[in-house]
Amino acid sequence: MERKWENISQWLKQEGVEMAFVHSTPNVFYLTRFLCDPHERLMGVFLFPEADPFLVCPNMEKARARAAGWTEQIIGYDDAEDPWLMIGEALSKRGIERNATIAVEKESLPYARAEALLGVVPGASFTAVDALINQMRLVKSADELAILRQAALIADEAVQVGLDALGLGRTELEVVAEIELAMKKKGIREMSFPTTILFGANSALPHGTPGDRPLNKGDFVLFDLGVVLDGYCSDITRTFVYQEASEEQRTIYDAVLTAQEAAINACRPGVRMGDVDLAARNLISERGYGEYFNHRLGHGLGIGVHEFPSIHERNDDPLLTGMVFTIEPGIYVPEVGGVRIEDDVHITADGVELLTRFPKTFQIID
Amino acid sequence: MERKWENISQWLKQEGVEMAFVHSTPNVFYLTRFLCDPHERLMGVFLFPEADPFLVCPNMEKARARAAGWTEQIIGYDDAEDPWLMIGEALSKRGIERNATIAVEKESLPYARAEALLGVVPGASFTAVDALINQMRLVKSADELAILRQAALIADEAVQVGLDALGLGRTELEVVAEIELAMKKKGIREMSFPTTILFGANSALPHGTPGDRPLNKGDFVLFDLGVVLDGYCSDITRTFVYQEASEEQRTIYDAVLTAQEAAINACRPGVRMGDVDLAARNLISERGYGEYFNHRLGHGLGIGVHEFPSIHERNDDPLLTGMVFTIEPGIYVPEVGGVRIEDDVHITADGVELLTRFPKTFQIID
Repeated sequence: MERKWENISQWLKQEGVEMAFVHSTPNVFYLTRFLCDPHERLMGVFLFPEADPFLVCPNMEKARARAAGWTEQIIGYDDAEDPWLMIGEALSKRGIERNATIAVEKESLPYARAEALLGVVPGASFTAVDALINQMRLVKSADELAILRQAALIADEAVQVGLDALGLGRTELEVVAEIELAMKKKGIREMSFPTTILFGANSALPHGTPGDRPLNKGDFVLFDLGVVLDGYCSDITRTFVYQEASEEQRTIYDAVLTAQEAAINACRPGVRMGDVDLAARNLISERGYGEYFNHRLGHGLGIGVHEFPSIHERNDDPLLTGMVFTIEPGIYVPEVGGVRIEDDVHITADGVELLTRFPKTFQIID
Repeated sequence: MERKWENISQWLKQEGVEMAFVHSTPNVFYLTRFLCDPHERLMGVFLFPEADPFLVCPNMEKARARAAGWTEQIIGYDDAEDPWLMIGEALSKRGIERNATIAVEKESLPYARAEALLGVVPGASFTAVDALINQMRLVKSADELAILRQAALIADEAVQVGLDALGLGRTELEVVAEIELAMKKKGIREMSFPTTILFGANSALPHGTPGDRPLNKGDFVLFDLGVVLDGYCSDITRTFVYQEASEEQRTIYDAVLTAQEAAINACRPGVRMGDVDLAARNLISERGYGEYFNHRLGHGLGIGVHEFPSIHERNDDPLLTGMVFTIEPGIYVPEVGGVRIEDDVHITADGVELLTRFPKTFQIID
C-alpha cells in the first residue's frame, strides 16, 4: 500500500522542520486513506522527519481509522477529555517540547488550534505545508484517475435523469429530488455539493439555489451537479431550453459553448493556466458578453470539489500532465437567464481527456 | 429589523477593541441575515466601535447580500482580484493602520487569514469573539424558536416517511433516498447533515454511513436525520426493530429510553449541563452498558446542527431559558447493534419543551 504521508516526513527532513500537523479531512484522507469528518472535534495526523507518526481522533472513530489501513499509533479521546494533554505527552516522547518549527495547513488551521499547538510546544513557529500537499494532490495517480473517470460518467447519467424528470410545472426541487433518488439507488452516498437546478431567470444567479419555481415554456434549465465516489468528486454543468428558444438564448448558448470548447482546445501540458481562462474569456468578450462572465474559468477537482488550482486569468502556473480540473465559462444576463457549460478535464501528455461527456449541442427539450 | 451586529459594535466599545472580523458562514448569517457559503473565497463582516461596518464578499454574491437586507458598505471582488488590498484601504479610511486589537473567531479563522489581517494591520493582536457570539446565539429569540419548532416537526414527518419506506430487502440508501425525495417535495432544500439510516449491526457504529445493506428480519433500524428550514436545523434519532425483537434488543432499548427521559426530566433553568448528561449516563451504567455509551449526551442546535454548547459530563455551565439542544444517549454493542434516541429540547422558564415529538415507545415494525 502507498504511504503518502512518508513524503511529508521526507520533506520535513529536507527542510529541517521538526514536525507537521495535518488536520483537514481531505488532506488526512489523501495522506492516510482515513476519511473522517469529526465536525468540531479534533482530528489529525502528526508527522516527523524520523520518529513514528501518530493520529489523533475521537475514540469512536478509531476502528474506522484501523479499517482504512492506519497501522501506526492512534491517540483516541472521549468528549470529556482534552486531547492536547495526550498530544503534549506524545510530542514530549519524541523530543519535541519547545521552539520547534511546525508545518501546518495555514489555509484551514483554525487560529485556536495554532494556539493549542503553542500551548504544547511553547515558542513554536509555523510554516505552511498547504502548498506541498496541494502540489502532491495536483497530479492524480492512475488509481485516482480511474475513480474520477467513473465519478464523471455517473454525473453524466445524473444529467440524463434530470432531463427525463423535466415537465411543465415541475419545480426545481422536485427535479433535484429525482436525480438524488436515482443516484442513491445506484449506491451513491453523497453528492459533491447540493445539486443545483435553476429554471428561467433563476439560472442567471451563478450560485442560485433551487426552490419551488415551476418550469415554464421557454425557460433555460441549468443543471450543476456532481457525485462523490470513493472520496473523489465530479462536477458537471449543462444548460438546456425548455420547449422553445428565443434568438437571444441561442446567441448566448453559442457564445458559451464556443468559449468552453476554445478553452478545452487550449489545454496541453506547459500552457499557462491564465491563458486557458483567457481563451474562453476573450471569446465571450468579443461576442459582447464580457461583463456577464463574472467568475473564474474553473477549479481543480479531486478529493475536493473545489480544490487547488484556481483557473483564473492571472494564474501564471503551467498545466501539468495528470491534472484534473473544471472548465466552466458562463454568461448570466440578469432577468433573462444564464448559461454555463462545465466539463471535468484531465491533462494528458499530448492534450486533454474529457471526463464528463454529456452532449453539449444546443438542445430544446420537449 | 433587528441588527444583531450592533451588539458586537457595543461590545467592542466596552472592551476597547478596535475592530472585529467575523468570517464564518453561520455567524455572518446570525449577525446580518446574509447566508453565504463562499467556499474557499473570502467573505466576512468588519465591525467597529463607532465607524460604519463593511461586508466583504465575491462580486457575484453582492446582490444576495442586498436582498438579505445588508444596507451598509459592501466590498466586492472578482476571482482575479486580491480583496485584502481593498480591505486595507477601507480600514485605513477608518483610521486602523497598525497595532490594533482585532476580535476574530479563533475557533474557525484560518491561520492564513490571521496572517492576511496582520498584513493589512501590522502589529495587530487577536482576541476571541467566538464566546460572545456563541453566547448571543445560545438563547434563541421567539422568531428563531418558531423556525426551530417547525424544523423539528418536519424531522418527525421525515421519520414517518422512513418507516413507511421500510421493506424486507430494501437497502439503507434506498430508504434515505425516499426520505430526501419526500422532503424536497415539501420544499426542503437541504438536510442538516447526510441522512443516516443504519440496519442491524451497522447501527452499532455511532457515525456509520448508509450503504447497500438490505433490511433483514430482526434488524435494528436507526434513523438519524434533520432538515434545514430558513437557515435553522433540526436533528432527530429514532431506533426501531424490524419484524421481530430479541430480549437483548428490548433490554438495550429500554435502557436508552429510560436514560433519555431521565435526562429530559433533569432539564430546567439553572441545572448544571454536566448533570443532565450524568442523569442519562449513570442510568446506562447502572444497567451495565456504561462502556457502550461512548459519546456526549448532546449539543446545541440552531443555525448549526452541532453548535455551542457541548452537553457532556464535565460541562459546569447552567442551562438557560431559551436554549435549544439535543438529548441523544445511545448504547452501541459491537456486532449486535445500537440504539440511540434523540430529541431537540427547548429550555423554558419552568422546564423543557420537546420540539421533536415522534413517539418513542418500543416499536416492532412490520
